[in-house]
Amino acid sequence: MSTVIKSGTIVTADMSWKADVLIEGDVIVEIGEGLKGETELDATGCYVMPGGIDPHVHLEMPFMGTYSSDDFESGTRAGLAGGTTMVVDFCLPNPDGQGLLDALQMWDNKSTRANCDYSFHMAVTWWGEQIFDEMQTVVRDRGINTFKHFMAYKGALMVQDDEMFASFQRVGELGGIAMVHAENGDVVADLSARLLAEGNNGPEGHAYSRPPQVEGEAANRAIMIADMAGVPLYIVHVSCEEAHEAIRRARQQGKRVWGEPLIQHLTLDESEYFNQDWDHAARRVMSPPFRNAKHQESLWHGLMSGSLSVVATDHCAFTTDQKRYGVGDFTKIPNGTGGLEDRMPMLWTNGVGTGRLTPEEFVALTSTNIAKILNCYPRKGTIRVGSDADIVVWDPEKEKTITASSQQSAIDYNVFEGQHVKGLPRFTLTRGKVAVHDGEIRTEEGHGKFVKRAPNTPVNKALSTWKELTAPRPVKRSGIPASGV
Amino acid sequence: MSTVIKSGTIVTADMSWKADVLIEGDVIVEIGEGLKGETELDATGCYVMPGGIDPHVHLEMPFMGTYSSDDFESGTRAGLAGGTTMVVDFCLPNPDGQGLLDALQMWDNKSTRANCDYSFHMAVTWWGEQIFDEMQTVVRDRGINTFKHFMAYKGALMVQDDEMFASFQRVGELGGIAMVHAENGDVVADLSARLLAEGNNGPEGHAYSRPPQVEGEAANRAIMIADMAGVPLYIVHVSCEEAHEAIRRARQQGKRVWGEPLIQHLTLDESEYFNQDWDHAARRVMSPPFRNAKHQESLWHGLMSGSLSVVATDHCAFTTDQKRYGVGDFTKIPNGTGGLEDRMPMLWTNGVGTGRLTPEEFVALTSTNIAKILNCYPRKGTIRVGSDADIVVWDPEKEKTITASSQQSAIDYNVFEGQHVKGLPRFTLTRGKVAVHDGEIRTEEGHGKFVKRAPNTPVNKALSTWKELTAPRPVKRSGIPASGV
Amino acid sequence: MSTVIKSGTIVTADMSWKADVLIEGDVIVEIGEGLKGETELDATGCYVMPGGIDPHVHLEMPFMGTYSSDDFESGTRAGLAGGTTMVVDFCLPNPDGQGLLDALQMWDNKSTRANCDYSFHMAVTWWGEQIFDEMQTVVRDRGINTFKHFMAYKGALMVQDDEMFASFQRVGELGGIAMVHAENGDVVADLSARLLAEGNNGPEGHAYSRPPQVEGEAANRAIMIADMAGVPLYIVHVSCEEAHEAIRRARQQGKRVWGEPLIQHLTLDESEYFNQDWDHAARRVMSPPFRNAKHQESLWHGLMSGSLSVVATDHCAFTTDQKRYGVGDFTKIPNGTGGLEDRMPMLWTNGVGTGRLTPEEFVALTSTNIAKILNCYPRKGTIRVGSDADIVVWDPEKEKTITASSQQSAIDYNVFEGQHVKGLPRFTLTRGKVAVHDGEIRTEEGHGKFVKRAPNTPVNKALSTWKELTAPRPVKRSGIPASGV
Amino acid sequence: MSTVIKSGTIVTADMSWKADVLIEGDVIVEIGEGLKGETELDATGCYVMPGGIDPHVHLEMPFMGTYSSDDFESGTRAGLAGGTTMVVDFCLPNPDGQGLLDALQMWDNKSTRANCDYSFHMAVTWWGEQIFDEMQTVVRDRGINTFKHFMAYKGALMVQDDEMFASFQRVGELGGIAMVHAENGDVVADLSARLLAEGNNGPEGHAYSRPPQVEGEAANRAIMIADMAGVPLYIVHVSCEEAHEAIRRARQQGKRVWGEPLIQHLTLDESEYFNQDWDHAARRVMSPPFRNAKHQESLWHGLMSGSLSVVATDHCAFTTDQKRYGVGDFTKIPNGTGGLEDRMPMLWTNGVGTGRLTPEEFVALTSTNIAKILNCYPRKGTIRVGSDADIVVWDPEKEKTITASSQQSAIDYNVFEGQHVKGLPRFTLTRGKVAVHDGEIRTEEGHGKFVKRAPNTPVNKALSTWKELTAPRPVKRSGIPASGV
Ligand SMILES: [Zn+2]
Ligand SMILES: [Zn+2]
Ligand SMILES: [Zn+2]
Ligand SMILES: [Zn+2]
Ligand SMILES: [Zn+2]
Ligand SMILES: [Zn+2]
Ligand SMILES: [Zn+2]
Ligand SMILES: [Zn+2]
Repeated sequence: MSTVIKSGTIVTADMSWKADVLIEGDVIVEIGEGLKGETELDATGCYVMPGGIDPHVHLEMPFMGTYSSDDFESGTRAGLAGGTTMVVDFCLPNPDGQGLLDALQMWDNKSTRANCDYSFHMAVTWWGEQIFDEMQTVVRDRGINTFKHFMAYKGALMVQDDEMFASFQRVGELGGIAMVHAENGDVVADLSARLLAEGNNGPEGHAYSRPPQVEGEAANRAIMIADMAGVPLYIVHVSCEEAHEAIRRARQQGKRVWGEPLIQHLTLDESEYFNQDWDHAARRVMSPPFRNAKHQESLWHGLMSGSLSVVATDHCAFTTDQKRYGVGDFTKIPNGTGGLEDRMPMLWTNGVGTGRLTPEEFVALTSTNIAKILNCYPRKGTIRVGSDADIVVWDPEKEKTITASSQQSAIDYNVFEGQHVKGLPRFTLTRGKVAVHDGEIRTEEGHGKFVKRAPNTPVNKALSTWKELTAPRPVKRSGIPASGV
Repeated sequence: MSTVIKSGTIVTADMSWKADVLIEGDVIVEIGEGLKGETELDATGCYVMPGGIDPHVHLEMPFMGTYSSDDFESGTRAGLAGGTTMVVDFCLPNPDGQGLLDALQMWDNKSTRANCDYSFHMAVTWWGEQIFDEMQTVVRDRGINTFKHFMAYKGALMVQDDEMFASFQRVGELGGIAMVHAENGDVVADLSARLLAEGNNGPEGHAYSRPPQVEGEAANRAIMIADMAGVPLYIVHVSCEEAHEAIRRARQQGKRVWGEPLIQHLTLDESEYFNQDWDHAARRVMSPPFRNAKHQESLWHGLMSGSLSVVATDHCAFTTDQKRYGVGDFTKIPNGTGGLEDRMPMLWTNGVGTGRLTPEEFVALTSTNIAKILNCYPRKGTIRVGSDADIVVWDPEKEKTITASSQQSAIDYNVFEGQHVKGLPRFTLTRGKVAVHDGEIRTEEGHGKFVKRAPNTPVNKALSTWKELTAPRPVKRSGIPASGV
Repeated sequence: MSTVIKSGTIVTADMSWKADVLIEGDVIVEIGEGLKGETELDATGCYVMPGGIDPHVHLEMPFMGTYSSDDFESGTRAGLAGGTTMVVDFCLPNPDGQGLLDALQMWDNKSTRANCDYSFHMAVTWWGEQIFDEMQTVVRDRGINTFKHFMAYKGALMVQDDEMFASFQRVGELGGIAMVHAENGDVVADLSARLLAEGNNGPEGHAYSRPPQVEGEAANRAIMIADMAGVPLYIVHVSCEEAHEAIRRARQQGKRVWGEPLIQHLTLDESEYFNQDWDHAARRVMSPPFRNAKHQESLWHGLMSGSLSVVATDHCAFTTDQKRYGVGDFTKIPNGTGGLEDRMPMLWTNGVGTGRLTPEEFVALTSTNIAKILNCYPRKGTIRVGSDADIVVWDPEKEKTITASSQQSAIDYNVFEGQHVKGLPRFTLTRGKVAVHDGEIRTEEGHGKFVKRAPNTPVNKALSTWKELTAPRPVKRSGIPASGV
Repeated sequence: MSTVIKSGTIVTADMSWKADVLIEGDVIVEIGEGLKGETELDATGCYVMPGGIDPHVHLEMPFMGTYSSDDFESGTRAGLAGGTTMVVDFCLPNPDGQGLLDALQMWDNKSTRANCDYSFHMAVTWWGEQIFDEMQTVVRDRGINTFKHFMAYKGALMVQDDEMFASFQRVGELGGIAMVHAENGDVVADLSARLLAEGNNGPEGHAYSRPPQVEGEAANRAIMIADMAGVPLYIVHVSCEEAHEAIRRARQQGKRVWGEPLIQHLTLDESEYFNQDWDHAARRVMSPPFRNAKHQESLWHGLMSGSLSVVATDHCAFTTDQKRYGVGDFTKIPNGTGGLEDRMPMLWTNGVGTGRLTPEEFVALTSTNIAKILNCYPRKGTIRVGSDADIVVWDPEKEKTITASSQQSAIDYNVFEGQHVKGLPRFTLTRGKVAVHDGEIRTEEGHGKFVKRAPNTPVNKALSTWKELTAPRPVKRSGIPASGV
């Protein structure tokens, strides 16, 4: 069955032009003028863009005996409703010694219900020979080239510097990309304990316990360790100037480092935690926490100048009931907010709508850049003959006010509640299937497939060449010691 | 007549893939596997890349009653020999009151002999109502959207800050791009006079008279003025950390500024001016002068991190005899060096060969980025169906040692003399015509055509939106003064 | 007649210790325990500090046929009331060709009424041989080693880059210090005209016409020119991060540059200009205008880290009636605010009171640093045997709310109206005379004397040594040109 | 017995003036003109400066069953010969559980032979309740307010982040100063192992194993941890731009951080490690290793701009025989070089002699700044009535070429061998005793006394005030959770 998207303006990260798009089955088969297909989607007045890719989600994430409330079904449905056609989740082995492949089996099971395509990052949550060995299988056989490391969550997911260095070197050998959650876990743990001891047990204590400094420090440390290991580095959820500065400085030194701000940090600020309503504040608890306006400006400038590369959500949705586990102790509030449905409209409104970003840059930041970094380009991340027909037909005149009452997510609130957005999907297609049709949701549970991603990107190769060229060489000496005194 | 490029790996700024390229007449008509054409060019083992675009050349430039020695024929022939398929020259109205259109006529006359396509930047060398008015014609009728301003060459091409600000505002209104040669001309003039007075009259005096500080200052000033005028800014021949820092800082603040280093500054250093041989030193006299290693590293890092966007040559070739006009007075040495033939092999060798750059980044820096900035993309700057067949088939294993004796340029020396390069064109095609065929030059004088470039790029539009959004608004007051004391 | 200050804690920039201070006539004659004198001033619970030095005031400044309203009498009285015992005014030759010595005569006449000691900076408001020649007399005979240059006020006080460069070189030869008011006058003039044309004629238009960028640019330019001229540079009224950044960057490169923020910019912000009351806004009109909180934080950090050196006022007081000259045209609002009485209490309250500054740093920033820079140390700027008895006995527990109704200044309002300060003078002594006695003003008109300041400070000498060491040297060549082709 | 220093120019960090200095016993009793004393020292043509304070030495340091070769006798003799009159050594408790007081007893025993005054920093080499408790005794009873932490030397002196954070908080409570040796020990350990495994076992391997990046990272981390703990931080042996940048950035943010470069890093570079002579290279092995010229320039600029505060030596002298423990394995080469005798002449020659520094800045960097930071000012660090007569009479015309054959140090080589210095002591006095008399050494073993230093400097107080003012405050909420959904 063929579908044609008619009369729109195609926008890629590369350029924009008016053309129709013809789809057969899963893929784009023709781009041009006057195309015909069995089904026609009218894109008049719209931009036809590659569907969004959210490289940072946690669907049905295990947590204290239960799970985050959006699973692969509701999460990907929310994504599609907002124009996102691919998500990347984090496979989290239990740090008590679970193997990578074992954990992957659990993630495979959960993801069968996905409405759109997805992939996984693998987390390294402990270190040992088993991990070292299985990493190769994960890369070669399972199509995962990205390995996440937690510098926070002491006593749980956190790894030590020497473990991280060992893992980074292994990732480098395998041609992969290192990733980090950058916060100094030792300091966060101690600050949290001090705050609780002083009676600072409300949600604002969460923000106090993870100031920008601890994020900046960890980002800086991860960058150094990646540099020493000779591996490209991707830093998730960059929320503040301090971490951004570390990334900028690294890039200015020619290092291969990418930063990923979240749509939340770009548009919401720390005043949310000072809300008189405990629920309001607790619902915004995530790590890193929201920051103040200075940091927002820094992040926007990073997107504009290229020092930051990708906008994600870290979507990890907990209901108000779940959030209330932390009444009286902010460290027990489950960390995470939603965002999958809102990322694209919020970024368009505050980015393209204000003139901070061009439409092409919007596409780069929501889709193309991450597809290249993760190595699933051009299958994903562009409008091109042969690419998967993951497409959003974007109506720049369509408006709404975000509200939980009409959202796809399973939870009972929305951190963007009340925000007015202009720029919304008219249609969203996942591998050729129309999942969103002018406001109507037509998702198909289980339609989504896993996207394999190979190692050894051009950036990996270039970095390896440079590291080999500049590797330490021993000095040739004839007699040692050659001199007397 | 059709030509097919067989069995190569296409490399664009976007991605790389194995495919054949079919050309009919001037343009690419098909990209795919197993293509056939009347003429076949074997690209086995090669990269098939968009031909280089050199956005900064001066061919047959008027100078003291004579001209720079490479004209549009020899200059474009040199370019093609090195894989460059388009050049952009600067139309320089006489500051004694020549109109823009009048000057353009002179440049049109000279460029008829070009072997490859070309375009012009317009220089604003004086200010007045005539200039203001003709700028609109230049943009709308003549297809030129870039306006160059000289902050140096006092008493000749240099414009004052208020003139530059007026011109920048006009460029902004017209949807164009402002360009600057950034050096503080007042300081250069005074330093030059002091040096000569102190007996520092050799070619090294040229370098002493234009230290990095004067370039950095001017770049910083131009950036502020462009910001106030609300116009995107392109800074030519960025040679030093000081100017690069100003650009980086501006970009980090969300400003729309691009920097263009030259291949000379990336690979040669100031020690050349201290050569015992006057001719050797004088042949390297250009503005800005070569810098030391610290600056080279800064420029490379700029290319790697994206804070610098384009690699050019400022090709302006003078013979040794012409250089000798300045014996006894360095200020009389004609400014300029060659580079058109060597830019691509030198950047490949020192960039891709070392692992500093990926092949895709090489294409971006030599072709794609500038095509987008100048707004002739995707006609130029990519390998795509419908694009002009300006193509270089790049053999990464082909090597040579650069020497004047075998170069295309009309002059008698080469500043890269003795440099060994690995990575050279096997074929160069200009709008479908094979101009370089495995070492043999088959250029056709007059084949080149002028490339029109429209205003109002996406960056222009975004910047205008932002400037409008943040424009000063008067405070509403009911009575003025409303208060007594 | 002798006076002893009993039982206080002496605080200098160097250290703090408990001791009495004995004064005979103009000078401190003994410091120690248990001293006796004819008059005793009880400093129990107080800090005994060198009186403040305000290096930037304009008293009875000529303006549009009238004068700024505080003259040397009321201005120095205000200063003494707030603990300031020396002021430095700017001698401003008429740019229509008035000589330096001629202008100095006018300033000498005005200053006879001063209640405390004072000195002058000389302004270079035009350039010519007469200025060049008289500069030497000013330095050698008149005891002035600081020369101010206006980069703004186009068509009036502003000088061009080449004039500034020539003057800076002359200042350097004479062993003096160059000073600048850093704003790009060309851009300010044009922005002002555009704003007026667009109907932005209120006081907020003043702020719009002089954004931080134009200050940062000019500061950066002045720094480069001073560096090329080999002269130390002092930048007055640094109000924003952009200018501070330029200073910081220069200092990090080893340049001898000092920055002077004003107490206004440290504590007040741009929201004042958006006040509904025209008078309120107009009274705050000064150049540079107040900035936002980001800039305030930058300035405080500069004081803390040493990248900014001195806190001044730019005291230039106009009455509301004078301010109203600019109704309907903000460019006609006389520029300037008061501050002489409030600088020290405001800086203490917001600096020492918050823990940003130590008491010793407070003394350095209000007195000692500038005494050293201007070369009147240790006669001024410290508590030391042999130094002038310019002393403030500071009561850290004394509080008040600032209000125009009780101020010394001749004007009818105060920009700090309503600010609560804690930390005020108990006594102020000017050359041994008690001018403020526990709230009572006992100033003596004409008591103040001119303070001569010699050139060739240690910083001048060090900079000259370095510049000589690194001066350009010609390359020795035997035959020129020595080579054929 | 009285001594008078006649006819010199006194130079302090504050100012310079011509005066005689009269000493009775240990202290300065009078400063003025025409003074008389029993012994006269002729300072004609000389600068009379406070003796140098070297805040970073390791005398008779335990090492692999033996000791570093300069003990308190030879080390302080070397110091005095070069104009240094006080040293601060590091008391290093055995990390296997030795208590602070126990270790202090060992250091007390060693130091009895000192020729000049000295003090100790206490190292925190492990963490536990005993350490926590004894820290108070160390501060209150033993007069030590500085606590050193090693971020390197994994498996030996290194502490973990959480231990460091706990210790820093304790130091802050006690009003002390935290210190760090900043290198990432995990990364150094792993790099060292890799290098050895690859056959890089020569002394250059030492440099390869500790690149600037690992120092910069650790400095940045320590700064963040100190900021979170609210304690001032002193970073020893800052050798590179990366660490300096971290310090600069911190200071620009208003943090209380000081950096200490060594004279070695200011004047020697990494090429020493590439010497063909193993002994030559091994003798230069210290941590951090020597860096390249870029880093030297950065350090000098830090001294000039105030971002770096103190010049030290890290004097830790090992003989060639001791160095040879590391033949075949660079990790076994004892770390350390000499410098006590050469610091002052080398800094004068390369600092004051070149115009980088004024004489007053020289005094600040070698003596006054550290006396203030360590809180022994004005007993030490200045020329002032009542201060200890620790004085160097500095002859700016005296020259020599440094050579091991005439040095005081016990070792058989000198890393500054062959360096020509201009500017040397004519006399050095330690607490009134002439220890160096015009080239003759007249030290007295055991003359040196321990210098107690109290906590709670003005900087401590200011920082505590600020941290209290900005401490997290809980949000007041009436009902929790107050809302339904
Ligand atoms: Zn995370
Ligand atoms: Zn996450
Ligand atoms: Zn140019
Ligand atoms: Zn040019
Ligand atoms: Zn001013
Ligand atoms: Zn002023
Ligand atoms: Zn150390
Ligand atoms: Zn040490």
